[in-house]
Amino acid sequence: MPYVIAVYDVNQKRTGRMLKLFRRYLTWVQNSVFEGDLTMAQLKQLQQEAESLMQDSDGVVFYQLRDERYSERIAIGVDKAERSRFL
Amino acid sequence: MPYVIAVYDVNQKRTGRMLKLFRRYLTWVQNSVFEGDLTMAQLKQLQQEAESLMQDSDGVVFYQLRDERYSERIAIGVDKAERSRFL
Repeated sequence: MPYVIAVYDVNQKRTGRMLKLFRRYLTWVQNSVFEGDLTMAQLKQLQQEAESLMQDSDGVVFYQLRDERYSERIAIGVDKAERSRFL
Repeated sequence: MPYVIAVYDVNQKRTGRMLKLFRRYLTWVQNSVFEGDLTMAQLKQLQQEAESLMQDSDGVVFYQLRDERYSERIAIGVDKAERSRFL
């Protein structure tokens, strides 16, 4: 299953709705950064839902990793991610 | 060469210094998100420089990808990345 890192940069008016949307699909990492396993169908669905919310100069970037897991995740300082699955 | 996606979440007092530091090593993507090729030595150096700036509940996460390139980068809406190398 592809592993996805997703980041968004949207107008403050829409951060609440974007946060809620991305949390339905992925694990919150910090700020507007999320990660998790998604099927191709789920990724497509998330993209479409994000697009329907986005306006003006809002932007989202998805990094879809070939491997189920990226090679390595290095957290320094406080790891704010919601789950401890990474530790 | 490892491909790195880096994100930080730091106190507002330090965002300017962090931005300046990360820009020296990587390409700015959006908000506090960066990406680019780094040697292992450069990654280590960036980590150490970031650590020396970080305080309190500041956090940084590096995703170090095995492959030179992650599988796929999908940008929707406005792609704010500094360089057009991704297009």
